[in-house]
Amino acid sequence: MISAPAMIGSPVSEVDTPALLIDLDALERNIGRMQARIKGTKAYLRPHSKTHKSTTIANMQIAAGAVGVCWKKVSEAEIMVDGGVRDVCISNEVVGKAKVERVAALAHRAKVSVCVDDVDNVAALAAAAARFGATVHVLVELNVGANRCGVETPADVVALAQVIRDSAALRFAGIQAYQGAAQHLRGYEERRAAIEGAVGKVAQALAALERNGLACEVVAGAGTGSFEFEIISGVYTELQVGSYVFMDADYGRNNDRDGKPVSDFENALFILTTVMSSPVPRRAIVDAGLKALSVDSGMPRVVGHDDVSYARASDEHGRLDIAGESRPFKVGDKIRLVPGHCDPTVNLHDWFVCIRNSRVESLWPVSARGAVF
Amino acid sequence: MISAPAMIGSPVSEVDTPALLIDLDALERNIGRMQARIKGTKAYLRPHSKTHKSTTIANMQIAAGAVGVCWKKVSEAEIMVDGGVRDVCISNEVVGKAKVERVAALAHRAKVSVCVDDVDNVAALAAAAARFGATVHVLVELNVGANRCGVETPADVVALAQVIRDSAALRFAGIQAYQGAAQHLRGYEERRAAIEGAVGKVAQALAALERNGLACEVVAGAGTGSFEFEIISGVYTELQVGSYVFMDADYGRNNDRDGKPVSDFENALFILTTVMSSPVPRRAIVDAGLKALSVDSGMPRVVGHDDVSYARASDEHGRLDIAGESRPFKVGDKIRLVPGHCDPTVNLHDWFVCIRNSRVESLWPVSARGAVF
Repeated sequence: MISAPAMIGSPVSEVDTPALLIDLDALERNIGRMQARIKGTKAYLRPHSKTHKSTTIANMQIAAGAVGVCWKKVSEAEIMVDGGVRDVCISNEVVGKAKVERVAALAHRAKVSVCVDDVDNVAALAAAAARFGATVHVLVELNVGANRCGVETPADVVALAQVIRDSAALRFAGIQAYQGAAQHLRGYEERRAAIEGAVGKVAQALAALERNGLACEVVAGAGTGSFEFEIISGVYTELQVGSYVFMDADYGRNNDRDGKPVSDFENALFILTTVMSSPVPRRAIVDAGLKALSVDSGMPRVVGHDDVSYARASDEHGRLDIAGESRPFKVGDKIRLVPGHCDPTVNLHDWFVCIRNSRVESLWPVSARGAVF
Repeated sequence: MISAPAMIGSPVSEVDTPALLIDLDALERNIGRMQARIKGTKAYLRPHSKTHKSTTIANMQIAAGAVGVCWKKVSEAEIMVDGGVRDVCISNEVVGKAKVERVAALAHRAKVSVCVDDVDNVAALAAAAARFGATVHVLVELNVGANRCGVETPADVVALAQVIRDSAALRFAGIQAYQGAAQHLRGYEERRAAIEGAVGKVAQALAALERNGLACEVVAGAGTGSFEFEIISGVYTELQVGSYVFMDADYGRNNDRDGKPVSDFENALFILTTVMSSPVPRRAIVDAGLKALSVDSGMPRVVGHDDVSYARASDEHGRLDIAGESRPFKVGDKIRLVPGHCDPTVNLHDWFVCIRNSRVESLWPVSARGAVF
């Protein structure tokens, strides 16, 4: 692990760069706002911690009312349990001997749920859980439009649920139905229609389970782009939203009901970067490139400079193109970027530098950085 | 740091996934081949270690004949000196009080060179080196077509070189002239012409330095896409090639003199990944997504399956599209991917799992992973 790029108590101007900054006030407001959105509904929150990979933030979300957190990887779930979380869901298929055994071992230390879409995988989980004397909770994943993992039909859901029910060391928990392809549709109506399609498919699966005498406690899904539709759907119970804690430039390109950029949540995550070269007008080079931010969902946004665009990332450099005639930067200036995609950007760093009132208040490790298996 | 996904001595089939594999035989052949290419020329190697971020591989390159290594970041150079390297070049501008002081401190422990393109930055380096009682070697960066950092004209080079010469704690070492934009031009002739342009600009700068009585010991540049042209240029002395040790899918799309894919070096780096879901024909999902490989330079290549393409990466998943009617994979199968771009892919992992004869021979930490400042 690399040493932190700042000292607690220092002004933000002294933070070395590139660094991952959290605006603590904005983070706290985002956590509170999402909790407020479900008040009085039958939905509860199980935030997706793959966004922040931080036991600290997961515990803040649970303290605010979340039932637990979810993750995508077994190694992340282990770190979260070590960090004090007692209810973790790996909202993903867990395949291979090493991983299945790690899940069974972890189920001694916390309530652990996983997803399945394959009958041989169910058998492997059942055998490992029995060997470890543990109970693993299992959700059947249903493909509701993301076309990634998940079975296709209500009959497939029933068939797997029956196998799970008949496995002594497993417990059938419900359906995983995340419509990932809906999250970044730009129009409000497009996102609404995509979730309407998912809800229809979930409703069919629920009816089929009921006809077969299988109780379905959990219907899990939703993301920051669509959660308001899952809340009012009548079928979803568990919201696995993640990015709302930080927001990013890509989610900021979604439009709300009035066709304006969404504004439910604030940008709480920034890359602090230094202008390291500006040899000619209209071009400046900053020290945050592909190893400090992810460009898979578009370029970062330059805070406070509407006429400056982050045009190109190489391994260790970013090129800023300056539209106007002015030279807004000199070498050594520090500026903030909003990452295009927060999840893979966080994964590049070892430390969150947490800021309040322009000073470093905390340094939090990115607890599960690199927990890729 | 995450625990390693393998045990030394295990067969590769037992490596947990996703994992970063090195084929040790291929790595050793690549290192030897590049060294052979410069035999009998006036060029020497200072490999770019940002590709591998490994003190182990850097020391292998030096043992094979390299004078030292280069990096892009001060924190990387510190790790390399800790790992036993005595001659490091930060082939990049070093800006900001914290970084400049770290360079000066490091110059007590090894020969350290940096690049500059700004006179105030030269003054900051000179002051820090004087405070620390150290000597820092300085290259003036000249923009030879990458349009990133670097001064524009021979007169600019001379002006900065004079300031460096007149600074007691600095030593003018030469010119940094990396033509980064040439590396991925697909045609041989295009790459040749781009380096010809760079060579012309370097020659003008060398003449201007000579007219002003400034000795220029080093002209540094070159990359895996263009090094053969720098070798025969008559002006370049130092080759800062990096990717040749591993190669990647993007370099593999360059063509040689005969219009065929380049074949100087072998793929020595792979992502081992598991098929975690295959619910319908023509689609399989693997467990290596954006957090296990970088897609900035195109998608990875699936080894051994020409009719299968890695079509889409999400945070933790990759979608394989299968062209034929066959279902080549079952859930649990492990396959190899050639990363699109090796440098940012390596940076995502904590461990190299080093393979020979299908067994794990070594586990090497990615020593400078996350060394971003």
